[in-house]
Amino acid sequence: MRIKLTVSYDGSEFCGWQRQKNGVSVQETLENALYSLTGEKIKATASGRTDAGVHAAGQVVHFDTQSKIPPSKFYKALNVLLPDSVKVLKSEEAPQSFNAVKSAKKKTYRYSLYNSEVPLPLKERYAYRIFGNFDVEKMKAAASVIEGTHDFKCFSATGGSVKTTTRTVYNITVQENGEDIEVTVTGNGFLYNMVRIIAGTLIAAGQGDITETDIKKAFETNARNLLGKTLPAKGLCLLNVEYT
Amino acid sequence: MRIKLTVSYDGSEFCGWQRQKNGVSVQETLENALYSLTGEKIKATASGRTDAGVHAAGQVVHFDTQSKIPPSKFYKALNVLLPDSVKVLKSEEAPQSFNAVKSAKKKTYRYSLYNSEVPLPLKERYAYRIFGNFDVEKMKAAASVIEGTHDFKCFSATGGSVKTTTRTVYNITVQENGEDIEVTVTGNGFLYNMVRIIAGTLIAAGQGDITETDIKKAFETNARNLLGKTLPAKGLCLLNVEYT
Repeated sequence: MRIKLTVSYDGSEFCGWQRQKNGVSVQETLENALYSLTGEKIKATASGRTDAGVHAAGQVVHFDTQSKIPPSKFYKALNVLLPDSVKVLKSEEAPQSFNAVKSAKKKTYRYSLYNSEVPLPLKERYAYRIFGNFDVEKMKAAASVIEGTHDFKCFSATGGSVKTTTRTVYNITVQENGEDIEVTVTGNGFLYNMVRIIAGTLIAAGQGDITETDIKKAFETNARNLLGKTLPAKGLCLLNVEYT
Repeated sequence: MRIKLTVSYDGSEFCGWQRQKNGVSVQETLENALYSLTGEKIKATASGRTDAGVHAAGQVVHFDTQSKIPPSKFYKALNVLLPDSVKVLKSEEAPQSFNAVKSAKKKTYRYSLYNSEVPLPLKERYAYRIFGNFDVEKMKAAASVIEGTHDFKCFSATGGSVKTTTRTVYNITVQENGEDIEVTVTGNGFLYNMVRIIAGTLIAAGQGDITETDIKKAFETNARNLLGKTLPAKGLCLLNVEYT
């Protein structure tokens, strides 16, 4: 039987989703709990790898099991075995054709920033500090240039191995709330570091260092150096994955 | 010269504000940084002790120093020496008559809750999980009975040594935002565990387990057992202290 899980984790202490020789991964942590529960060596497949330090509010995972535990009860049993940093929010039976990676239609990430001269101990864990004057209207204008279907090669780090670098970004919202700025990006898929480069580019746009023309030119010429820096992992969170 | 600091800390790893034999306190951490900076054995006095695990967004501290560092620059030098979990937001010269404890006129605390069947890894550090149906209107009605000047003995843990247990709570707000519920309490002073018992009482009121009549009766009879439980430290944050 195939089971679909919705999983949340605090990525701070993990080397990312995927198993690594050095460091504890979310995958290993979840597979260990599945083994304790079922006695089966289960491979858990997530919608996408998240890097070291990246958080998830709604990662989606599938796996196959012979277990007789009712699918809708799996989350409760797993949560007893999982550490505080990883919890399963929901478990359900999925058709054998369901694949957490391949069936995914849309993903939404949020990048959290805060504007402060001093690093704030109560924000540092889940957000990246910026400091200065940021024009949110300029950030929104830059975001609207990024939205749409483009070759996003310039918005990716080298090292990814993908067939095509064309992606569709359906929507980018920039929300300011006091010192907090949240950038939320929904797309049909993301290249390596893509959301972190989008966030870095919007910040540079908000400071007037990158214009809409620069972004258009980057798309035309694949010039990574016309865009903003890759922001750190800790501000990034996979909010949800949609399958229909 | 007397200096006033505004300090924020993540209380998770501290044994509280006050120096203890076992465990690292915020006071010790700050005094060590002051010693490294000035070479003086400085005693730092906070507006009030916060317990182990309680956070602060705007704790106020005073100390005396012979240092020639301009008061308005102290925070920068201290932040270089302080760990990520404690940062000084502001430093300023204060009159010799200023005392972080005795001059305080109002304090505001926030207690953060979230309503979820499953513990959420991204919320657990700074909020307390509740689960069920909570009627926020009932919580607000209960809050309005607690507001005002009362003998708050029933809203305190034993062990405090204070001259009088009469306090004035100027304002309690209950804000619901999706699964989050925030209780913000402003008063002229607080007894030991008072905000944590107020939050526990409002939660019980929201579930229909404690009525406004119960709270009135608790005030009349000093009966702690008519009120809600003392909620854990991690949901509590000292937001600010006002002096004028």
